[in-house]
Amino acid sequence: VKLDAPLQSGEVALVGAGPGDPGLLTVAALSLLRDCDVIIHDALVSEKVLDLGNPNARRVFAGKRGGRPSASQSDICNTMISLAREGHRVVRLKGGDPFIFGRGGEEISRLAEAGIRFRVIPGISAGVAAPAMAGIPLTERSVNSTLAFLTGHEASVDSRIDWKAMVTAFPVLVFYMGARNLPEIADRLVSAGLVDSTPVAIIHAATLAEEEISIGSLADAYEGRLEAHSPSIVIVGEVITKRRPWR
Amino acid sequence: VKLDAPLQSGEVALVGAGPGDPGLLTVAALSLLRDCDVIIHDALVSEKVLDLGNPNARRVFAGKRGGRPSASQSDICNTMISLAREGHRVVRLKGGDPFIFGRGGEEISRLAEAGIRFRVIPGISAGVAAPAMAGIPLTERSVNSTLAFLTGHEASVDSRIDWKAMVTAFPVLVFYMGARNLPEIADRLVSAGLVDSTPVAIIHAATLAEEEISIGSLADAYEGRLEAHSPSIVIVGEVITKRRPWR
Repeated sequence: VKLDAPLQSGEVALVGAGPGDPGLLTVAALSLLRDCDVIIHDALVSEKVLDLGNPNARRVFAGKRGGRPSASQSDICNTMISLAREGHRVVRLKGGDPFIFGRGGEEISRLAEAGIRFRVIPGISAGVAAPAMAGIPLTERSVNSTLAFLTGHEASVDSRIDWKAMVTAFPVLVFYMGARNLPEIADRLVSAGLVDSTPVAIIHAATLAEEEISIGSLADAYEGRLEAHSPSIVIVGEVITKRRPWR
Repeated sequence: VKLDAPLQSGEVALVGAGPGDPGLLTVAALSLLRDCDVIIHDALVSEKVLDLGNPNARRVFAGKRGGRPSASQSDICNTMISLAREGHRVVRLKGGDPFIFGRGGEEISRLAEAGIRFRVIPGISAGVAAPAMAGIPLTERSVNSTLAFLTGHEASVDSRIDWKAMVTAFPVLVFYMGARNLPEIADRLVSAGLVDSTPVAIIHAATLAEEEISIGSLADAYEGRLEAHSPSIVIVGEVITKRRPWR
């Protein structure tokens, strides 16, 4: 275990940046950010987090953002490998946690193949941060003993998942990037057997100044009565009735 | 958003302590631990984390441990409420994340009822930390677009969940406290339709000095060929073949 040992020349740390508030960086992430030569970061990493990095470190933007030319996954990996081979101490900073809908697996696969030293520092995933900020417990003994994470994207595509089986087995669902397809998500869930009145919570920009929390039902969601801005975490299930806002 | 604002007199922070290595505390958790009057902690919180707390803070052990008299959930809540009412600044420190299999929901419900000010600081859950330490991505575009968390306990009881539906919808499963019932878990999964050769990873004491990682198959697990000590996170699914150990 060498989570926050100093990076060596030519080493890469794949680091979870958490949801945005610098207070949710881990101690290890902060210490690696402060003592590295290069920071390769995604669009989802907040400015406030980047501001804590070594001011002399080179910054490489590797975001994938709609509407502008963006780096391909393969380009990002190539950049990371070249910089490590030049002897730099590289922090690859990813929003949330690197291994939850973050394509971190593809990146360490390339690093391993290239013979680069690396480590992985987990981060607070948005699906964990958002309910905490909203005061919504993800598990409650009277409601659920399982918890499902998935992406909102699934609702808009020829989904690989069996939605009926999912709602049967999982009373609580957490959708990443759930805003854009909110009506489709709600529609799929109702078609799969959930009742119209099932509670829905939408947490936009969890931990940031522009954070917004909306609560409604699946019917509200598929009829477009719930406002949802990207990026948002969407929670579906009876645990939402257990919500106790911070006070 | 006041994650790491100083605690006020009579306020409670429900804080996730992460999996054990102090490097995985959040910056907010560390600052609240350093500046509080009372720390009420579970058995799963590591000594190393407790050592970072304010040395003058009173420590209250609220663990539930087998074989010795232990505090009931109701006692813990009563203690928390009395200490807050006496004007103390209370950190309620819970292993992992307070809202993922942590009964944090019951605690904030009691706090809200009692009119106590509180906030919730998410933590790195063991189910997120363990795969990072093992180099196992929880999601891979070619394997899964969903992710399931549940407890190992489910395999040993008259389970509320539909295991067949679960394995149909979720190619990757993460079991908390999965060691004790490993053969039962494997047996349930095979009965539900997973093939014997499905990969299994057992990560014991993730991030601690005694961390151990074992990899095998469901057949190895139900035939008792995989060693599993408590506490462990058990991961089941093809993502395990994408494992790249730190190097």
